[in-house]
Amino acid sequence: MADVRKETDSLGEVSVPADKLWGAQTQRSLEHFSIGKDLMPREMITAYATLKKACANANHAGKRLDDTAHRLILETCDEILAGQHHDMFPLHVWMTGSGTQFNMNVNEVISNRCCQLAGTPLGSKKPVHPNDHVNMSQSSNDSFPSVMYIAAAVNTKERLLPSLKALHDAIDAKAKEWADIVKIGRTHMQDATPITLGQEWSGYAGMLADNIERVEDALKGVYRLALGGTAVGTGINAAPGFDVAAAAEIAKLTGLPFVTAPNKFTVQGAHDALVQLSGAFRTLAVSLYKIANDIRLMSCGPRAGFAELHIPENEPGSSIMPGKVNPTQAEALTMIAVQVMANDVAVGFGGASGYLEMNVYKPLIIYNITHSITLMTDGCANFRKFLVEGTKPNLKKIKEYVDRSLMLVTALAPVIGYDKASKIAHYADDNDLTLKEAALKLGFVTEAEFDKVVDPSKMVHPYVATE
Amino acid sequence: MADVRKETDSLGEVSVPADKLWGAQTQRSLEHFSIGKDLMPREMITAYATLKKACANANHAGKRLDDTAHRLILETCDEILAGQHHDMFPLHVWMTGSGTQFNMNVNEVISNRCCQLAGTPLGSKKPVHPNDHVNMSQSSNDSFPSVMYIAAAVNTKERLLPSLKALHDAIDAKAKEWADIVKIGRTHMQDATPITLGQEWSGYAGMLADNIERVEDALKGVYRLALGGTAVGTGINAAPGFDVAAAAEIAKLTGLPFVTAPNKFTVQGAHDALVQLSGAFRTLAVSLYKIANDIRLMSCGPRAGFAELHIPENEPGSSIMPGKVNPTQAEALTMIAVQVMANDVAVGFGGASGYLEMNVYKPLIIYNITHSITLMTDGCANFRKFLVEGTKPNLKKIKEYVDRSLMLVTALAPVIGYDKASKIAHYADDNDLTLKEAALKLGFVTEAEFDKVVDPSKMVHPYVATE
Amino acid sequence: MADVRKETDSLGEVSVPADKLWGAQTQRSLEHFSIGKDLMPREMITAYATLKKACANANHAGKRLDDTAHRLILETCDEILAGQHHDMFPLHVWMTGSGTQFNMNVNEVISNRCCQLAGTPLGSKKPVHPNDHVNMSQSSNDSFPSVMYIAAAVNTKERLLPSLKALHDAIDAKAKEWADIVKIGRTHMQDATPITLGQEWSGYAGMLADNIERVEDALKGVYRLALGGTAVGTGINAAPGFDVAAAAEIAKLTGLPFVTAPNKFTVQGAHDALVQLSGAFRTLAVSLYKIANDIRLMSCGPRAGFAELHIPENEPGSSIMPGKVNPTQAEALTMIAVQVMANDVAVGFGGASGYLEMNVYKPLIIYNITHSITLMTDGCANFRKFLVEGTKPNLKKIKEYVDRSLMLVTALAPVIGYDKASKIAHYADDNDLTLKEAALKLGFVTEAEFDKVVDPSKMVHPYVATE
Amino acid sequence: MADVRKETDSLGEVSVPADKLWGAQTQRSLEHFSIGKDLMPREMITAYATLKKACANANHAGKRLDDTAHRLILETCDEILAGQHHDMFPLHVWMTGSGTQFNMNVNEVISNRCCQLAGTPLGSKKPVHPNDHVNMSQSSNDSFPSVMYIAAAVNTKERLLPSLKALHDAIDAKAKEWADIVKIGRTHMQDATPITLGQEWSGYAGMLADNIERVEDALKGVYRLALGGTAVGTGINAAPGFDVAAAAEIAKLTGLPFVTAPNKFTVQGAHDALVQLSGAFRTLAVSLYKIANDIRLMSCGPRAGFAELHIPENEPGSSIMPGKVNPTQAEALTMIAVQVMANDVAVGFGGASGYLEMNVYKPLIIYNITHSITLMTDGCANFRKFLVEGTKPNLKKIKEYVDRSLMLVTALAPVIGYDKASKIAHYADDNDLTLKEAALKLGFVTEAEFDKVVDPSKMVHPYVATE
Repeated sequence: MADVRKETDSLGEVSVPADKLWGAQTQRSLEHFSIGKDLMPREMITAYATLKKACANANHAGKRLDDTAHRLILETCDEILAGQHHDMFPLHVWMTGSGTQFNMNVNEVISNRCCQLAGTPLGSKKPVHPNDHVNMSQSSNDSFPSVMYIAAAVNTKERLLPSLKALHDAIDAKAKEWADIVKIGRTHMQDATPITLGQEWSGYAGMLADNIERVEDALKGVYRLALGGTAVGTGINAAPGFDVAAAAEIAKLTGLPFVTAPNKFTVQGAHDALVQLSGAFRTLAVSLYKIANDIRLMSCGPRAGFAELHIPENEPGSSIMPGKVNPTQAEALTMIAVQVMANDVAVGFGGASGYLEMNVYKPLIIYNITHSITLMTDGCANFRKFLVEGTKPNLKKIKEYVDRSLMLVTALAPVIGYDKASKIAHYADDNDLTLKEAALKLGFVTEAEFDKVVDPSKMVHPYVATE
Repeated sequence: MADVRKETDSLGEVSVPADKLWGAQTQRSLEHFSIGKDLMPREMITAYATLKKACANANHAGKRLDDTAHRLILETCDEILAGQHHDMFPLHVWMTGSGTQFNMNVNEVISNRCCQLAGTPLGSKKPVHPNDHVNMSQSSNDSFPSVMYIAAAVNTKERLLPSLKALHDAIDAKAKEWADIVKIGRTHMQDATPITLGQEWSGYAGMLADNIERVEDALKGVYRLALGGTAVGTGINAAPGFDVAAAAEIAKLTGLPFVTAPNKFTVQGAHDALVQLSGAFRTLAVSLYKIANDIRLMSCGPRAGFAELHIPENEPGSSIMPGKVNPTQAEALTMIAVQVMANDVAVGFGGASGYLEMNVYKPLIIYNITHSITLMTDGCANFRKFLVEGTKPNLKKIKEYVDRSLMLVTALAPVIGYDKASKIAHYADDNDLTLKEAALKLGFVTEAEFDKVVDPSKMVHPYVATE
Repeated sequence: MADVRKETDSLGEVSVPADKLWGAQTQRSLEHFSIGKDLMPREMITAYATLKKACANANHAGKRLDDTAHRLILETCDEILAGQHHDMFPLHVWMTGSGTQFNMNVNEVISNRCCQLAGTPLGSKKPVHPNDHVNMSQSSNDSFPSVMYIAAAVNTKERLLPSLKALHDAIDAKAKEWADIVKIGRTHMQDATPITLGQEWSGYAGMLADNIERVEDALKGVYRLALGGTAVGTGINAAPGFDVAAAAEIAKLTGLPFVTAPNKFTVQGAHDALVQLSGAFRTLAVSLYKIANDIRLMSCGPRAGFAELHIPENEPGSSIMPGKVNPTQAEALTMIAVQVMANDVAVGFGGASGYLEMNVYKPLIIYNITHSITLMTDGCANFRKFLVEGTKPNLKKIKEYVDRSLMLVTALAPVIGYDKASKIAHYADDNDLTLKEAALKLGFVTEAEFDKVVDPSKMVHPYVATE
Repeated sequence: MADVRKETDSLGEVSVPADKLWGAQTQRSLEHFSIGKDLMPREMITAYATLKKACANANHAGKRLDDTAHRLILETCDEILAGQHHDMFPLHVWMTGSGTQFNMNVNEVISNRCCQLAGTPLGSKKPVHPNDHVNMSQSSNDSFPSVMYIAAAVNTKERLLPSLKALHDAIDAKAKEWADIVKIGRTHMQDATPITLGQEWSGYAGMLADNIERVEDALKGVYRLALGGTAVGTGINAAPGFDVAAAAEIAKLTGLPFVTAPNKFTVQGAHDALVQLSGAFRTLAVSLYKIANDIRLMSCGPRAGFAELHIPENEPGSSIMPGKVNPTQAEALTMIAVQVMANDVAVGFGGASGYLEMNVYKPLIIYNITHSITLMTDGCANFRKFLVEGTKPNLKKIKEYVDRSLMLVTALAPVIGYDKASKIAHYADDNDLTLKEAALKLGFVTEAEFDKVVDPSKMVHPYVATE
């Protein structure tokens, strides 16, 4: 057939579609691992181009890579970084656990693109050989995990954290705007003492601020790269100093503080730094779940629920119930949170399951990590834009609840003791009275005392009625 | 602009690309929920077409749907079932938790395609209205979960179970082929008494057979459909008997024993049947993980490992170590198993998190269920084709281990007692002797006795040396 | 010292407290594995006594065990089954993964107790030797998993299922009692069409009934015992037929349909049957979580929540807020549900992690299984007694919500179309009108029509207003 | 009956055993929540005594608590801290989700013990009232989470981290001792290039060192206490400044840097700091799982496995196979690791599931956190003492593997190219030759070249044969 060409690797010849830049090993992987529809995360393409460029620079500086190969590899990597050739990376997630085939896909595409640029035939491996030049000083065993760490760190810094900060800021702005709206607090889902709506949302802002700190802490370990450890961490076939030089190149290219790992065996036998990062994502998911859930609760109604918040009506809510408005953004975000928690289980189990000098759950790990990053990046953005920013308090309802509340009795406890205060609340509840009516009926306080002590606006700060 | 048209829903007008069949609500969802890259599983398109066809049939038979609408809906559904229009379902997984927008996407596409067939303008909702006709007698709240159950059951029956059975059969064939190859057993990863290679693999076949039974058991609940419960399970806006009739249509169309659920509140407030199905998938994943892991262990080497099995060399194993062969299919399958276990956590957490009359984690649930089905379907197929079928025993190595083993001493225990047998094993180990040498040296048995009792081929069946 | 005695095993002498019945191997385990406070589940003691009795019977019938040893072993096992000697089993969960040390603890205690009964010195191993007699025809590798299966099945049947059935019955009784109380349904936590309180609770009853079926299905695999497979599943040192005979004895002693496993390698290399059982427990936990959560929601208030249900006030709710009543039973049950879901993760991960002829996560697995059984047994009982049975509807509040609801408009959709019905709901919401006021104001229906169609009591069954 | 006395709370009278110090609310909880056998973690008793002492000091300094009450509360707390009265805390984990009943248990016991010390009748609540004095300025809603944080931080610092550091040091010592033992590396479980045994273990030491850093990072959030937030975070019934003062007292008493949380709503509505701590424990568990698993693999044998390491023989390994030695400490540690991973799922799910002003999964969270701390503290200690410290290399076997290895060919790749090197390895494997024999036979290198380049001792460091 005219539309294929022969490519070779150490096992022999393979037919590859003529218009593809990949080579024999990529083609073998396509045949043996076309499992499902999950492609290796696209973030890995860019990160690999960054690493190959950095290695070429370090090897060129070290006089191991000739000028021509260096120039061609750089030009190709820059094309990839500019978004070209992404369709030349067709491999699936569920392949060899080392990611070797994806590394070879990168090596082969770069080699062949260099052939194109140099005017040599595809598959000739000249002037740039996939193993001997593009993979120079590297093994999949150190390059693939390094690329995982690069992809994870870059996307966390450039996508997730900005989206999270924007959500934090939007919630914080609401907290400040609503600082003085006194509403009923709820513990155990039961009426409790008052709180301001702003205080409540300041708690959410605080949760997100803490999560930003946690994610930043978790990144510390992710900046330590395996590159230079080659096959088993010893650095065989890499020159002394290559590890430091290549990491410095990567730091320069990404603007992030990557360094060579102080112990390569630590970062090749396992990928605990990504497990920890995933765990930090899990904590963030836990926070998002709670925040979205709270907003869903506060906006439930309109007539048979809390109805303390009006949320934006972005779409018709029901295909059968006309006029229904649903907290769909909260639903999407809580689903995302659950998915991230589950992804984290995969990362943990996969991270634990490595043997000896290599963990072979690498594609699984980076698939789940990048999935979590993408979901929370987009989820936080949409939740902010389509829910948080448009949410308004239902002042009428909020006031009504405070006025009817029984738990304002708490302020009386320091004055008349816990037990008498408790009697008032029960008496009011049993007889459908207001708190004040019950208090006066039971004779535990005078009206003046009651009015002085039981003031919701005082109760939203540290406050002892007797002081 | 010429390339959009106006579509309307109860919230007003929306611009939709002129060449798309979807309507206003799909477009709104695209705007508000373009989160990540996960599209609603394609299996849901087919399953929804099945359901819409079944409902149209039931409504037509019940004289609620006119002939024209019936005919047009059927024609459209048949087109979808034949694989057309799939690009008209662009919505993402992470949307409203009820799946309403996807149901509306289906309703809108069918309505508009009927308009095309009838020669009326797109968006005219005549002669087939998305809500009043396509969604007749339905709510998203009963149709979406019913479609989830259909998608789950159909894909389990038609894709997963056949792939699993084929893997079972391939392993079973090996078990029979290798029935008489005596090898060393291992418990605690330590040498133990002999076993045949066929027995070992018969254990794997048994595990898979049990899993087939478990998955079939789990499907029982999945066959009970919510359809007919409409908004909250009561059946409002559906005629009496519609539930039974529509389920019967679905059973006819799929060839699977779907019935209307005996209690609609049970299957709309929660989706425990899918949680249970996912749990059965998890058990299967646990089995696959163990089997793949065992094969990885038995094939490790070639010179510094067990090396009892030769596995096919499908691709070069390393980008730096020439000539390396790796158990890549086992790696892919164990990664898949971990992913399925994690997906199951998502299903469980999502399944638990519903409130009152509806669980709003539906897209999450079906996303993870179909993901698990696809991964295990393809994973089992590849593992079978590219590993199991080509695996061969390394008879030389297998024999060597049996010959050197110390644990054959077990057969002596009923003859000379546990304590003396233990002394022989320790003595042999400490002095680097064969078992026989040690036994004779310690004088606990005669050579004749030893040879009679310590016969590996006897030890692979119930056997008491003294009887 | 006078208060210790010497015991021996194949590694030599060990000092054991003089008043203890255990021997050398138990003592060694105490020294090396005193990890945390989790003792091997007490359910395992009883189950082991059952198994040892069954084996003694089978061996005696097979003429392998002499009359004296048989009689003494039986007497001792009966003492243990009657609740004696439980303090002689001091070993922790976190020991060897095969449970060997616990099996030896049982063997040693029985041996020594037989010595006491026979008047021979403790540690003499005569007339009953721990390995040669008590452990006759067995290995830890088949007896320990068999005992796990016995403990799991017996406690599921005798404790969990009765408690679950009682909860089902209590909920079902409420469902019948409340069959005609029309309340507002809620989907997405938002007001939806009406439902009766009895329907809602019938859904819960249906969920529990389904779970009973699921757990029974899962037990099928648990009844298949490894016993007779001995060290690696081949049956070495067990006579042909021992497996069948011993399983029959166990079936007789427990009254449950235990049989010998058709393939011993399947049930010794892995414990998928327990993974599946745990998965069924997980589905049950998912159901309990949802039910308890719903009741918590419906009882929230008293003044600023749904307040549709009055739950029993079992204890003061707050140390600072006098008069507070909290859904504490729901809280305990949801915590239990979460723990069971987490226990299930441990069982799954542990179940997957076995190698070759043996899974060495057995104590972990049975610890989590029995933990889940105990928690759900007690949790369901308390939830029933202290919450479900005393719960009462708040009829005033329930009626108020129905009267004010906007979603009754759904019944109008088949009459005036979805879009007009939607306009009515929105108009009522925006202008704080009742549905009827809005409908008449917009002129879409006459008052007579409205009153005929919009009748909540009709809406709780299949109902099309136009038919 | 003479052996009970009456105690009262706001719901009325309760009979309490006369010899117990607890009061009415503890007794009610015992009746309603005797679920399973899990008692509230004992670590919570000590931590609560610390908090109550700190609060008494802060309130006394603030002139809110009189001298007598202050003195008596301090004396009682010191008794508890000295280990007395622990049997007066009989409550179970599975209670109200706020832990209120346990807080009341503490309040009641302290009140009654103060009565004893003061010579007043038990239950008199004079001179020290459980709510008005012991619980002064507090709610369960701020004190219980604060006590959780104290218990978690103190036990992490005083128990887990020292045990972990000792394990790190023991492994690090082995790494140094074995720095020059060249062995075969393994990736994908397949033979790879050489590594020293010391390098391999240095990787484990590095993993543990990283985990110490991670746990310390996670503690940062745990030091921020809710105390002073009272019922809903606003500080009602606590005086301004109480939060800061009480946290300072706790810091003084524990020697740890506790501070008052900058936002009380953040730390009362959720307990993300504990979720994050649990996540760090999970990462540690992942590391321990991998390390223990590796040692299990390297010690497998003795005759049919890797057998590179000799591990201590602590106990007989089998009840049926005489002389068997098993890696039981590795088994215990991997089981512990799995349990910690599962506990982490519980913490995550529980941590996510709070509503509005309070998370009601507190007892669940602290139960799992303290369980994980205890298991890993003891597990690391035993693993170190009974396995790591006694492990010895099997030098004979280690050398044998290196001598026979095919992957030494990697060093040739930079000299003769990847493809030719690959041919040598395959040729050797197919023809059962040594690498050298194959290389010479194929004529790709001279003997002198081969001997110069293929030197295992050079391959365990960065090394390029051509440079």
